[in-house]
Amino acid sequence: MTARHYDTSGALQQAAKDHLWMHFTEMAAYTDSDIPVITRGEGAYVYDDRGRRLLDGLSGLFVSQAGHGRTEIAEAIADQARELAYFPIWTYAHPTAVRLAERLADLAPGDLDRVFFTTSGSEAVESAWKLARQYFKAIGQPTRHKVISRETAYHGTSLGALSITGVQALKTPFEPLVPSTIQVPNTNIYRAPVHRDDPEAFGAWAADRIEHAIVQNGPETVAAVYVEPVQNSGGCFPPPPGYMQRVREICDRYGVLMVSDEVICAFGRLGEYFGAERFGYLPDMITFAKGATSGYVPLGGVIARERLAEPFTEPGGMFTHGITFGGHPVGAAAALANLDLFEDEKLLENVRRNAPVFRATLERLYDLPIVGDVRGDGYFYGIELVKDKNTRETFTEEEASRLLKGFLSPALFEAGLICRADDRGDPVVQLSPPLICGPEHFDEIEAVLRDVLTRAWAQL
Amino acid sequence: MTARHYDTSGALQQAAKDHLWMHFTEMAAYTDSDIPVITRGEGAYVYDDRGRRLLDGLSGLFVSQAGHGRTEIAEAIADQARELAYFPIWTYAHPTAVRLAERLADLAPGDLDRVFFTTSGSEAVESAWKLARQYFKAIGQPTRHKVISRETAYHGTSLGALSITGVQALKTPFEPLVPSTIQVPNTNIYRAPVHRDDPEAFGAWAADRIEHAIVQNGPETVAAVYVEPVQNSGGCFPPPPGYMQRVREICDRYGVLMVSDEVICAFGRLGEYFGAERFGYLPDMITFAKGATSGYVPLGGVIARERLAEPFTEPGGMFTHGITFGGHPVGAAAALANLDLFEDEKLLENVRRNAPVFRATLERLYDLPIVGDVRGDGYFYGIELVKDKNTRETFTEEEASRLLKGFLSPALFEAGLICRADDRGDPVVQLSPPLICGPEHFDEIEAVLRDVLTRAWAQL
Repeated sequence: MTARHYDTSGALQQAAKDHLWMHFTEMAAYTDSDIPVITRGEGAYVYDDRGRRLLDGLSGLFVSQAGHGRTEIAEAIADQARELAYFPIWTYAHPTAVRLAERLADLAPGDLDRVFFTTSGSEAVESAWKLARQYFKAIGQPTRHKVISRETAYHGTSLGALSITGVQALKTPFEPLVPSTIQVPNTNIYRAPVHRDDPEAFGAWAADRIEHAIVQNGPETVAAVYVEPVQNSGGCFPPPPGYMQRVREICDRYGVLMVSDEVICAFGRLGEYFGAERFGYLPDMITFAKGATSGYVPLGGVIARERLAEPFTEPGGMFTHGITFGGHPVGAAAALANLDLFEDEKLLENVRRNAPVFRATLERLYDLPIVGDVRGDGYFYGIELVKDKNTRETFTEEEASRLLKGFLSPALFEAGLICRADDRGDPVVQLSPPLICGPEHFDEIEAVLRDVLTRAWAQL
Repeated sequence: MTARHYDTSGALQQAAKDHLWMHFTEMAAYTDSDIPVITRGEGAYVYDDRGRRLLDGLSGLFVSQAGHGRTEIAEAIADQARELAYFPIWTYAHPTAVRLAERLADLAPGDLDRVFFTTSGSEAVESAWKLARQYFKAIGQPTRHKVISRETAYHGTSLGALSITGVQALKTPFEPLVPSTIQVPNTNIYRAPVHRDDPEAFGAWAADRIEHAIVQNGPETVAAVYVEPVQNSGGCFPPPPGYMQRVREICDRYGVLMVSDEVICAFGRLGEYFGAERFGYLPDMITFAKGATSGYVPLGGVIARERLAEPFTEPGGMFTHGITFGGHPVGAAAALANLDLFEDEKLLENVRRNAPVFRATLERLYDLPIVGDVRGDGYFYGIELVKDKNTRETFTEEEASRLLKGFLSPALFEAGLICRADDRGDPVVQLSPPLICGPEHFDEIEAVLRDVLTRAWAQL
């Protein structure tokens, strides 16, 4: 019944093909080949059903901050499950959710003091939007309901979160969605239409696109702006200097809430508990999930500034929203144990100390003709692949598909590295290793990438 | 760090009030009083921070099927967390998710063979809608996107699921939502506008309201009909005889998918693994969550009939949807251990054997003047409270609020019973005890309700 007794025979493959609907997966790709099966993990590594070791260069899916196989978290969740595995925080409370809420409020910047728990990142993004909408209705600004987000940004896949997402190909099959979301340019300076060589000017221009969208769509109708500290989709776009501060000013000018979507960037990914601290801005809400528990148990949430709670703490006031598994005791216990590991093992300090080494190691790949751009922050990097690094010419859709899905993804796996070959924007390889990693892991990543990218170039 | 070391002092109360945003809760209600804090659970009982024992007559929130404190599940999740706590099922698989998918497909009726995992019930409801929408676009019927659901039905709170929900008060603060959801009458025969004394005729009438809505809104634009086996919100409305069969025929006639939303009703709540079996119909999709793991770890999903997977298993086909925590290893391990308990302890048989006793015990309350209707199925009952049982006159909104929130909820808690005093429809008390319960628990429930409802009547 436990994973140790897994079936490595053909029966497991057949069962997977017959019954497991894999996510974002072309299932026909496995008609004549085996589905890669991951069976166990330890530290920064996972193992497949053939016993092969792979470096988990993506932390699962940006979640495994403290690494795999952490018995401290396993024991904390078992203790909690024996004590109180589940109880709702609908009109009741339980100590573990309270303690986690208090701890997160302590860690979050400024007066981000109120924690609304969810089960997932999508639910966190949805809950922040719902909070913004009801908040504005409660304070007498009922026409504020729209959201501005950035092109190619991924904010989740439930229909509300998907509406905010800026990747149109993910939306088209599911339209019509929630109306009144607006996308503005992101901070991809590598492909900036203006000010490519002047980050501050580019950042001002990009922030001003948000102001333009607010004005164009009617400030009295705009509820919130969603930004990730470093935008994931498209391949790790950090904010140019001054960008976030200018976005904050623009939001204040028009009475719009600023939501920092930190489902990926919180909990050490950028060397701080929250990405907003890394870049020195104070949002009205922070959304989180993934790394909060290092992925050991699903848990997410929204941390909101005190003033957003005010209409809901008055007599008769209520945020009419709730989630069965919100503040789940076992999830909250996992998060507390995870935060203990952050403290005991000084994971933030490890990231801060080694982030420049990680960057420098990846930048060695610039000597390859296919590597156009290396960008990111902390332990979160994207490498953009190009056909011509001088002109920055990218690949055709057909080439990108052949390169990423046809060659790179299987070749990287075969070479022992889990990372992401992504084509939601221009083709990128993404890296987001566990926060326990150090220079020896970066070297291993660089060596695999050097080999595989060299072969990719030869195949073109 | 574990829940055993909880703080029973005022500090925990203060932290809860300052930082924990409770769900569906009027926070001002606790300005001058303590928030009820649940600290541990054992079997059918939970304990609060004053050491008082309460019978968990709601299974937490319809989740704790196998009861609290089950060490078997605690150990299974710890084993899994040590082995492989997290890995995505995005282009990979892991044995626990595969084995759970296979097991659910075995348990589900007919050719409901494909399992798409989610983290929560809302995400399951959203995923079924997304699947319906992309499926119809893939098979050349791109205009089918609308959903029909039933009045007062609760299908979740993320913006897509909320759009399907039929409780308008939960939607108003958050509109505009996903367009094109349509509500039709539910199967509340106690307040049926026609055929109150003829369940079969009422069922035919109610099913035909669905046909009318399909025709009125254009069959070529309707993607799916969502029904719960027993509708939760409003207070446990079972389907009249023949209703589900007629809904199935209507869906077939117009090429519309039938979704059985079993987030509450699956996993033994009605004495079968799935509510569709209990009432003898074969839906195109079943959504589940809550009881799948007995709530020990969040997990949900959609089980779809084989034909819905076909467009996505062809070369180049892909359901462009995914969820980070979908098929979570620890959640899947909890579900497998939970299903083992179902088998080892014959929980379904326990429900089937005792459900008539539960009903008969609750029906003893008919001698109270406030008890208008006792309805439900299996271990899932609603007791509708009325001002006049002969005329079925209900309470005014003000009376209902005073009765439910002002008196009943705290009085039931003080009397040692967790259940739900709900006013999303007419005022009801809802019961949904763990599936390990037997006649002695029903007697305890009846005794508490008799006392508290008698006092409630006296206070009116």
